[in-house]
Amino acid sequence: MNILISNDDGIDATGIKVLTKFLKKIGNVTVVAPRTEQSAVGHAITMKVPLRVTEYYENGNFFGYAVDGTPADCVKMGIKNIMKVKPDIVVSGINHGSNTAINIVYSGTVSAAREAAIMDVPSLAISIADHHPKNFEFAGKVARELTKMVVKHGLPTGTLLNVNIPDLPEEQIKGILPTLQGKTKWDDVYEERIDPYGDKYYWLTGKLIEADGKLEMDHFAVKNNYVAVTPVHFDLTDYQAYEDMQSWHVENILQHKTKV
Amino acid sequence: MNILISNDDGIDATGIKVLTKFLKKIGNVTVVAPRTEQSAVGHAITMKVPLRVTEYYENGNFFGYAVDGTPADCVKMGIKNIMKVKPDIVVSGINHGSNTAINIVYSGTVSAAREAAIMDVPSLAISIADHHPKNFEFAGKVARELTKMVVKHGLPTGTLLNVNIPDLPEEQIKGILPTLQGKTKWDDVYEERIDPYGDKYYWLTGKLIEADGKLEMDHFAVKNNYVAVTPVHFDLTDYQAYEDMQSWHVENILQHKTKV
Repeated sequence: MNILISNDDGIDATGIKVLTKFLKKIGNVTVVAPRTEQSAVGHAITMKVPLRVTEYYENGNFFGYAVDGTPADCVKMGIKNIMKVKPDIVVSGINHGSNTAINIVYSGTVSAAREAAIMDVPSLAISIADHHPKNFEFAGKVARELTKMVVKHGLPTGTLLNVNIPDLPEEQIKGILPTLQGKTKWDDVYEERIDPYGDKYYWLTGKLIEADGKLEMDHFAVKNNYVAVTPVHFDLTDYQAYEDMQSWHVENILQHKTKV
Repeated sequence: MNILISNDDGIDATGIKVLTKFLKKIGNVTVVAPRTEQSAVGHAITMKVPLRVTEYYENGNFFGYAVDGTPADCVKMGIKNIMKVKPDIVVSGINHGSNTAINIVYSGTVSAAREAAIMDVPSLAISIADHHPKNFEFAGKVARELTKMVVKHGLPTGTLLNVNIPDLPEEQIKGILPTLQGKTKWDDVYEERIDPYGDKYYWLTGKLIEADGKLEMDHFAVKNNYVAVTPVHFDLTDYQAYEDMQSWHVENILQHKTKV
């Protein structure tokens, strides 16, 4: 099995090293990851400046390729220019911090997996729900076992699994559940501050508006010590709204059509 | 009517100036846009560095607020810190270049509208399907008329309209259609080059794989000289895959659960 690994915390993060250790037990691993942290980059890609790729060593041993771009850049570059064949699966993570509910939209970890899905390669995004995680070993095991399951069962074209894991040792985990993207989101506001030169600057701050009360929702499941596994796709059409819009008669905006 | 305008081409782009001119005819306009071009940034937000906001003048007249961040940053900042009340609608654009099919995932223009939808504000993303557009006036008119329609009819919470307009004068436009996100995507590869110092660098290049043959699909509609209006949401769950996954028994990964 050929596995491409990426992340958004950067190639020197603990999470990607643990993930690599676990996945090496079940396949041939290629690591292509951002040189520096790329959290909250969303699905950014680098188009207006060229990319650079360098080999990254750990304790004198080759570990992988560092790209001075985004997670999505790494997956494109990894599949097209480095591996040159489609891997059997792409695994992104292990992220330091959760990517449930609305955070899926902002997540660099998920965007690496989504880029793989766009390229018709099955993929997983793996996150631990703490910015300073302690329980990497359990997350590594979950990643390894779900990798085997995805390769065995397959996923629909364009779909990835977004996996969020409580930062707990295995014996305190209550279960592993298929879940849906939750509705919990941030109420953000920029805190205004003054710099040493007297000029204003703004820091993003926010509080979570909890909107999920069932274990089927990813955010609520993780909060209640379950591992949440959400299938995510990039068909963004709101089909109901498409039906409803038929009655708007948008074509009437065109003068030469309505005059006829 | 209070209208917030943003874009991803930057506050000095022609598109946002035309959009502002047209929307001033129907409401009170606030412009909050990136200081510099932010194409293909996806739904990136700025978290690790503070943001700066400056007033931007055109010909000595105040035009709007320039933020040194992403389109999504501008919408958050615009609603929370600048307008301080929810606008009736957010309009993003007019983008120089199309945002149909897979490009919705990468688009900064769409991400500004999506950030509004996340904040429960109806929104529109407006793009002309040419990187060097000539027919801004027709696009401005479409933006103005659709703005009125969205405020009249409303949109489901979390849904925005993604509008793509052929770069043609109105009389050559065949119609305006409600559409779905197309399946057309890029086959990308990084072209390898050598810099003057003998080091490799890579430019993203790609060719489009056309996969849409019906006018219901945004990409195909625009290609055939129709304006495409696609309702887009951020519920990313693949519900069918969620059902299918029940048979995987992911809970078996947990030793202490399967042993019981």
